[in-house]
Amino acid sequence: MRVIIIGGGGMLGQKLARALGRRGEIGGRPITHLALADIVDPAPVEGPFAVTAHRLDITDRAAVDGLLAEGAEIVYHLAAIVSGQAEAEFDLGMEINLAGSINVFEAARAMGTCPKLVFTSSIAVYGGEIPEPIEDWTALNPQTSYGAQKAAAEMLLTDYSRKGFLDGRGLRLPTISIRPGQPNKAASDSMSPIFREPLQGREAICPVGPDYPHWYLSPRRCIENLIIAAEVPAEALGQNRCFALPGRTHLIGDMVEAMRRVAGDAPVSLIRWEPDRSIQNIVLGWKARFNPAKALALGFVRDDSFEDNIRFFLEDDIER
Amino acid sequence: MRVIIIGGGGMLGQKLARALGRRGEIGGRPITHLALADIVDPAPVEGPFAVTAHRLDITDRAAVDGLLAEGAEIVYHLAAIVSGQAEAEFDLGMEINLAGSINVFEAARAMGTCPKLVFTSSIAVYGGEIPEPIEDWTALNPQTSYGAQKAAAEMLLTDYSRKGFLDGRGLRLPTISIRPGQPNKAASDSMSPIFREPLQGREAICPVGPDYPHWYLSPRRCIENLIIAAEVPAEALGQNRCFALPGRTHLIGDMVEAMRRVAGDAPVSLIRWEPDRSIQNIVLGWKARFNPAKALALGFVRDDSFEDNIRFFLEDDIER
Repeated sequence: MRVIIIGGGGMLGQKLARALGRRGEIGGRPITHLALADIVDPAPVEGPFAVTAHRLDITDRAAVDGLLAEGAEIVYHLAAIVSGQAEAEFDLGMEINLAGSINVFEAARAMGTCPKLVFTSSIAVYGGEIPEPIEDWTALNPQTSYGAQKAAAEMLLTDYSRKGFLDGRGLRLPTISIRPGQPNKAASDSMSPIFREPLQGREAICPVGPDYPHWYLSPRRCIENLIIAAEVPAEALGQNRCFALPGRTHLIGDMVEAMRRVAGDAPVSLIRWEPDRSIQNIVLGWKARFNPAKALALGFVRDDSFEDNIRFFLEDDIER
Repeated sequence: MRVIIIGGGGMLGQKLARALGRRGEIGGRPITHLALADIVDPAPVEGPFAVTAHRLDITDRAAVDGLLAEGAEIVYHLAAIVSGQAEAEFDLGMEINLAGSINVFEAARAMGTCPKLVFTSSIAVYGGEIPEPIEDWTALNPQTSYGAQKAAAEMLLTDYSRKGFLDGRGLRLPTISIRPGQPNKAASDSMSPIFREPLQGREAICPVGPDYPHWYLSPRRCIENLIIAAEVPAEALGQNRCFALPGRTHLIGDMVEAMRRVAGDAPVSLIRWEPDRSIQNIVLGWKARFNPAKALALGFVRDDSFEDNIRFFLEDDIER
C-alpha cells in the first residue's frame, strides 16, 4: 500500500512518517511506499518500505496532480499556512489553505480510485456566538482567516466524499501541546513554550493567567489519531466527514502544577507570568469546552492527563 | 446611491429590481443608479433612477472587477447554478457557486470602499445528522454540492467582512414558494408547481404525501428581506454574517387546504397525488423545522399564513 503525506516536512508530518516507519502498516496492510511532499524538501525517514521526498507547492495544480498520479491508497493533507501567517497574509492563506486544498481534493478525484484523504482542520473553525460545550452539530463560526479557510475546505471535503470522488476524513485538531521545536506563527503556539522552554532549562513567559482554559492534545496522541483516521471505515463516518478530535480541557495553572509533579520545581520557577492583553484577546476567543462524542465513538484517543503530555515531551521531543 | 444586482436577470433579481424601482430608495437614501448583471442580458426595469443592463459571467474575474469598479454602495450577489444543476454538473457548480462567488467578494474588496454585499445562501446548507429545530448555532451540514458550495462561500463572506474587505450579509433562503414562471432545475422547485399550475388552470403532480413538512417563504416577503438585508446596521450582525431567514413550516396537505380557502375547489381538483420515491428521497432530507431567532431579532419578515402566499401569487405573479 502506498501512502502520501503532503506537508510531510512539518512537525506532524515528520512524526507521522516516523510512526509509519516504526509500524510498517496501516489497518493491517503493509506499506510499500511512503512519499513525503512539502514546500521544502522533507527529511527522509527510516522504515521497512521505500521512502521518497518531493518538493511540492500545492498551489501548483499540475504538480499536485503529478504527485498523486503515482497512486496511493491513503493521502494525508497536512499542509497549511498557520493561523498567524494566514491572518497577516490573507491572500497567501486563501491560495494555500483553500485553493491549495481544492487542488489536493481535485488531484485525489483525478486518481479515479477514491483514495482515503485525511485532512487536518482545526478548532479555529469554531468561535464567536456559539454555545459551549461544542457538540458535533455546533456551527462552524471561525473568527480567523485560517479558520474560515479550513471551514470552507471542510465543506468541500465532505461533498467530494459524498460524490465518491475521494474518501475524506477531516480532523479538527485541538491545540497541539506540547509542540516541540522552534516557535511558529500559529497563534496557538503561544501556549507550548510555557512548558517546552522550562523543561529544557530556559525561561518562558506566560501571557495568560493561571485560570485560562485550554483544549489540547499531545503530539503523540495526535499522530495516533492521524493513523486511526485512515483506518476508520467510511460507513462509520456518517453524513459529515469532519469532526472535532478528542482532547482535554485544563487550566494553565493546573497544567503548570502537572509539570511540577512530573519534572519538579525547577522548570516551574523558570516561568514568568506576564499577562499580554493582545495575546489574551486572541486566545480567550478560542473555545475550550468540547464534547467530541463522534470522534470518541469512532475510537479516536486523547491524553489521560497533562502529566502524560509532560512525559511524552520528555520521552519524544526533548533536545538533549 | 448606486446598487448592483448580480443575478439581476433571475426571478428574484427581477423582482428585487422592480421593487427598488417602486421604492426609489434603500434605508432612506435615494438610489441614483441600478446596474443589473446576469449571464444573459437582464430585462431593464422602470424606476426613478438610471438603469443599466450588463451581460456578466462571474467566472470571469476581470469582468466582475470591471463592473464593480464603477462603484456601488450595495452589491447584491444572487447569481448561482441551482441545486439540481450543481448536482448534475459538479465542476460548473464549483466554478460558478464557489469560484464565481469568490470573484464577486474579491471585486468588492478591490473597490476599497467596503460595500454592503447581500448574498443569497440557502437552507441547502443544512442536512444530515443535526438536531431540529435548527438554531442559529446549528452546524451547516450540506448534503448537496449546491449546499456545500454555498456553505463554503458563507465562511468566506463572514471572513471578508471581519477583515473589513466588504460588509457582508448572507441570507439562507427557505424554499421560495410559490415560485412563478417556468420550472427550473432547483430541486426545491418540485413543490411550487403544486400550487402554481392549478391556480392557472393546469394540472399538477404532487410527488410527496400530504404530511410532507415544508419550510417556505413567499417571493414577496423574500424581496422585502433582501431590502432589509441592505438596511440592517453592520454592528447588529455579530460574529457570523450568515443566518437563516424566517419562514413558516406547513404540511403540504395544509397548504393545499389554504389554497382551497383562497381560490376554491377548482384548483385543488387539478392536483394529482403521485408519490415519487426519487423526489421524496431528496426533499425528505431537507430540514423543515427552524428557529430563525437572529433574523427575527434583526427585523426580517415571514408570511403570516399560506393563504397569504396564495394571495401574493394571485396579485403578483399569475399569468393573465
